[in-house]
Amino acid sequence: MKKKLILGLMLAPMLASASEGMWTFDNPPTERMKKDIGWAPDANWLQHTMQSSARLALGCSGSFVSANGLVLSNHHCAAHCVEQISSDKTNYMQSGFLARSAAEEQRCPAMEVNRLEKISDVSEAMHHATAGLEGEAFTKAQNAETAKLSAECVGKDGDKVRCDVVSLYQGGKYNLYRYHRFQDVRLVFAPEQSVAFFGGDPDNFNFPRFDLDMSLLRVYEDGKPATISAYLPVSPTGPQAGEAVFTSGHPGSTQREYTMARLIALRDHRLPEILIRLSEYRGLLTQFRAIGAEQSREANATLFSVENSIKALSGQREALVEPSLIDAKQAEENALRKYVAGKPALKASTGGAWDAIAKAIKVSDEMREPLSQFEYQQAFNSDYAHFAFTLVRAAAERAKPNGERLPEYADARLPQVQAGVLSPAPVYPDFEKVKLGWSLTKMRERLSPSNPQVVQILGKDAPEQVAARLIDGTKLGDPAVRKALWDGGMKAIEQSDDPFIKLALQVDPIARALRKDYEARVESVITKANEKIAAARFAMLGTSIYPDATFSLRFSYGVVKGWKEAGKDVPPFTDFAGAFEHATDADPFKLPERWYAAKDKLNLATPFNFVSTNDIIGGNSGSPMVNRKGELVGLVFDGNIHSLGGAFGFDESVNRTVAVDSAALLEAMDKIYGASAIANEMRGATK
Amino acid sequence: MKKKLILGLMLAPMLASASEGMWTFDNPPTERMKKDIGWAPDANWLQHTMQSSARLALGCSGSFVSANGLVLSNHHCAAHCVEQISSDKTNYMQSGFLARSAAEEQRCPAMEVNRLEKISDVSEAMHHATAGLEGEAFTKAQNAETAKLSAECVGKDGDKVRCDVVSLYQGGKYNLYRYHRFQDVRLVFAPEQSVAFFGGDPDNFNFPRFDLDMSLLRVYEDGKPATISAYLPVSPTGPQAGEAVFTSGHPGSTQREYTMARLIALRDHRLPEILIRLSEYRGLLTQFRAIGAEQSREANATLFSVENSIKALSGQREALVEPSLIDAKQAEENALRKYVAGKPALKASTGGAWDAIAKAIKVSDEMREPLSQFEYQQAFNSDYAHFAFTLVRAAAERAKPNGERLPEYADARLPQVQAGVLSPAPVYPDFEKVKLGWSLTKMRERLSPSNPQVVQILGKDAPEQVAARLIDGTKLGDPAVRKALWDGGMKAIEQSDDPFIKLALQVDPIARALRKDYEARVESVITKANEKIAAARFAMLGTSIYPDATFSLRFSYGVVKGWKEAGKDVPPFTDFAGAFEHATDADPFKLPERWYAAKDKLNLATPFNFVSTNDIIGGNSGSPMVNRKGELVGLVFDGNIHSLGGAFGFDESVNRTVAVDSAALLEAMDKIYGASAIANEMRGATK
Repeated sequence: MKKKLILGLMLAPMLASASEGMWTFDNPPTERMKKDIGWAPDANWLQHTMQSSARLALGCSGSFVSANGLVLSNHHCAAHCVEQISSDKTNYMQSGFLARSAAEEQRCPAMEVNRLEKISDVSEAMHHATAGLEGEAFTKAQNAETAKLSAECVGKDGDKVRCDVVSLYQGGKYNLYRYHRFQDVRLVFAPEQSVAFFGGDPDNFNFPRFDLDMSLLRVYEDGKPATISAYLPVSPTGPQAGEAVFTSGHPGSTQREYTMARLIALRDHRLPEILIRLSEYRGLLTQFRAIGAEQSREANATLFSVENSIKALSGQREALVEPSLIDAKQAEENALRKYVAGKPALKASTGGAWDAIAKAIKVSDEMREPLSQFEYQQAFNSDYAHFAFTLVRAAAERAKPNGERLPEYADARLPQVQAGVLSPAPVYPDFEKVKLGWSLTKMRERLSPSNPQVVQILGKDAPEQVAARLIDGTKLGDPAVRKALWDGGMKAIEQSDDPFIKLALQVDPIARALRKDYEARVESVITKANEKIAAARFAMLGTSIYPDATFSLRFSYGVVKGWKEAGKDVPPFTDFAGAFEHATDADPFKLPERWYAAKDKLNLATPFNFVSTNDIIGGNSGSPMVNRKGELVGLVFDGNIHSLGGAFGFDESVNRTVAVDSAALLEAMDKIYGASAIANEMRGATK
Repeated sequence: MKKKLILGLMLAPMLASASEGMWTFDNPPTERMKKDIGWAPDANWLQHTMQSSARLALGCSGSFVSANGLVLSNHHCAAHCVEQISSDKTNYMQSGFLARSAAEEQRCPAMEVNRLEKISDVSEAMHHATAGLEGEAFTKAQNAETAKLSAECVGKDGDKVRCDVVSLYQGGKYNLYRYHRFQDVRLVFAPEQSVAFFGGDPDNFNFPRFDLDMSLLRVYEDGKPATISAYLPVSPTGPQAGEAVFTSGHPGSTQREYTMARLIALRDHRLPEILIRLSEYRGLLTQFRAIGAEQSREANATLFSVENSIKALSGQREALVEPSLIDAKQAEENALRKYVAGKPALKASTGGAWDAIAKAIKVSDEMREPLSQFEYQQAFNSDYAHFAFTLVRAAAERAKPNGERLPEYADARLPQVQAGVLSPAPVYPDFEKVKLGWSLTKMRERLSPSNPQVVQILGKDAPEQVAARLIDGTKLGDPAVRKALWDGGMKAIEQSDDPFIKLALQVDPIARALRKDYEARVESVITKANEKIAAARFAMLGTSIYPDATFSLRFSYGVVKGWKEAGKDVPPFTDFAGAFEHATDADPFKLPERWYAAKDKLNLATPFNFVSTNDIIGGNSGSPMVNRKGELVGLVFDGNIHSLGGAFGFDESVNRTVAVDSAALLEAMDKIYGASAIANEMRGATK
């Protein structure tokens, strides 16, 4: 479980060797790839792969796999949908889901799929807009320019177009990403969670694995399956050991360009604190689920997400307490600072950037607790509260000109905000009471019982009583009530006597003030300093480097290959036979009955999961694994335990991507799930 | 909440200034006290205070407060007893408990009280026994000498005498502490937990406070209240602001003499890991208690203890991530190493000690997970398992000569082990299932599902199933069954078909092997190196320094004094009026009804809690706060938030001890609880 870093790699800052790198599609490392794997994609390959890639707006990746809008992603990327269309009578997480006709395909309430169409460089406009500004003025100007560029890009096609200004290289470069937007997304197929997430949390981020972590969605337009021109044919055989493979997906976030001050803050403060909070929440959810089957279903997805975060963040923390990593990062920073110090002009403009960040981090130490509680809503861990805070803030923001709004309420982002607030997904009052009572208790703990806001919110009551009163009194569980408040704007909000709306109206000004202060004294300082450091890094290393991940489309290259763990070889492939060998009689190691029923028909030698040297991170879930021919040979669903330190650096000797073999997808659909029609659609047959 | 350390203090290693220090009674800092507070105790004062002090064997302090065996301690030190004598019909944690006659005083099943009678120096014997030895031989020789010295000291009076070899100055000195042992301890009085722990976890380690955190016990001998010659009269007025006060109690453990390697291991590994584990457990317990009143009662004490640990360890972690502390510790270590390097003989003997410890810490990183799971029984978080493991190991150890046993089974310690195993305290099967199911799940998580021992223990079942099967099948809930197994020795153990006994027999050899390896390669190395470093420290600084806390009797001196928090003065006293002002309608800020009923009779100006500059740490709970005249003026129950960094150093500007004023004890007993007879006994009236 210990991460071992190859120092040599780390000491050559950003000069990635071998498979390292999450590359943008407009800056492929062609020469390096030719050297490393003897091949590099041409413009057509890149364009086709880019257009075949899907972005699940809630935080995953996917790919188009048929001309009729079929989208392949992970089961865990569609789990919220699978739960939302379930009920206490039909639990599709347990039973799996298969639409046998278009009519049976069920709409996912809160799902949006995007397809990247175009990348343009807007660095000059962005840097120009903020030139010479600081603090609040900097933030305002940056938000306004972002909103302007996005709105111009979207034009009048907000229903079908989404545009994001993407910060790359920690602000060294700003690109405008234009997406086609699909808001009618329907569930086609999902296996049982017990095989999608076979091994559960214990095996999460581990390998060997035996997971059919797949789901199939279909995007619709005008009530019909969308017609898709660029999609990936699914290989019936999967890849070979040693074969070069490529991922195309949306790595969420890495911190490889962070300064030492930020890394130390992560190591000593942010990561331990969030892990301690999440762990308590995990215990709470575990015991809530133990009450009964219904409670278990209600809290299932939340617990999955919490456990997944704990494991990922634990891996990051463990990487940061390895002296070898911190020492290498320090050497990297020293080298860049030395370079800057040696060029008088750079020294004048950028020499103070590192200290400015360190100082901003200290300032943030003093303000981040109330900021987290009120602006990030840690205090109000409830769907109702989330609806109320969004409705209140959206009403205020929508009344402003686009360029003056908080960025998440700019025109380009509003459709997603609205979809979230109006989602028909069920809310479970008893579960919400537990979540909210707990988070209010934590608020009191973190801010102290005598904090004026805490006293104002709790009064003379216990947090659990306050939670119960709010939830018993609210009507926000009804999407129609939320729609009326959304449509009615600030007037409707102010007239509402819903207790959550009143709470949100009370907290919103506090939260806004905290955020404004944070943006002025911390965020803008760090952004500005980062832009300077990024420019210095370009000057020192050139532009053939890749930027930190920002949930924007990237590709990686690598080869199918195992690794050595504690001196022993871990082979790159598992097969169906192994799944049966590893099964026990109890969750999370229990295979579905359907698998035993089909066992005789199955080719047990079918490769099931495999690992490759690709450089990915959370957010890449659901990414297609593509071969040189542009065929989908695998479905990325995880990294191994060593990949978690990938937030800060990449070590090809042990860092591995974990994928479902495309052969397993088709074999299971054909022989276990009776889903040959869809499997054939994926093979390229006309639907 | 941020700890600020005065660098000057820390940079003069162990040269405590002002109130710093947890002093042994045989090495009082007479000159320093005269300088600091203008007074120092004479031999009689010291002897009387020492003999009036009580050690609660399960981890607290207390004092004798009458000639008839009355012992004053904290409510939270007797809470296990209060719970154990409660039932689903009478919940004394809620209602409070008062014995109106000797006949109503109820025996505490697992309580033992010790009184220190004599201290002798056995350093020479201990150092001689291990001279020239290493690894397993070192540990064996040390255990054998410890057992021999203790057994000789106890003689044939094991029922009434307990002797411990106490390691001081991290092994620089070994003393033999001879205690009078009281094993018949009865509960006399305990208020409602709601006022004993008013403010609950949110106010824990905070001040201002309003807690009546008291309990009264009585030690019996031969069925009658024991006659006590040395005891503390209780002051009806409490102390004055600025008055010099002294604590006498049993600080559990500090790490002020730790090397940097050990501090970094605490900061980066031990503390975050245990906090993450405890936080998950906290969430689990919180939600278990939410099921109903009975579950709430069953898990109350466990949750209290977990939350208390989390707060204390969080404070330690926060202290260690303060660069000022780590920098000061580094400077301290550098100074001592420089001193050693400058003396050729010391350099030869001791120069390598720091690196030896650093290396041993690395070795321990690789073995501590299985060691914690199996030898420290983290995997088996259940009273049943604890009984079984103790019965199995005790049977094996008791068959050996005293000097060859594991130290915790030496003759001197056996009575306490036996009392624990045979305790009639109730065990709640449903609660045990939750605890054990969870800890088995953690075992699988930490060691991996494919670990051979994990596979052996869980087989094809889920951890919860295994826990349920063990608990449904066990008879160890019955003290008579445990007694038969204790009395029957290894033969009875081997014939038992109890599932927990079988589990313990299966795990014991694994656990023993892990421990042996750990002792040989880590513990003995650190102990040996520490002894050398301690000798070097004596050489550099002289012997007028105090040792790290080791749950042995210490006294501290200080003055009643507030502090400045965020620029504002925190006054040293609270009063009864403040308690009513701070009360709300909900736990943990709800005062008992009895307090409102008595409010008119109370002198609301009675001082309630106060703070002083004394240097204490966990384990000091229940310590008497004594004035120069030898009167008990306060009852220590907590430290402020800044005291938590006291594990590593002392900062008199903010580190404060929190105590109940003796005036509050008497006023509440007289006017709220109708306990004047006992209050008068504490005032010194003949019973």
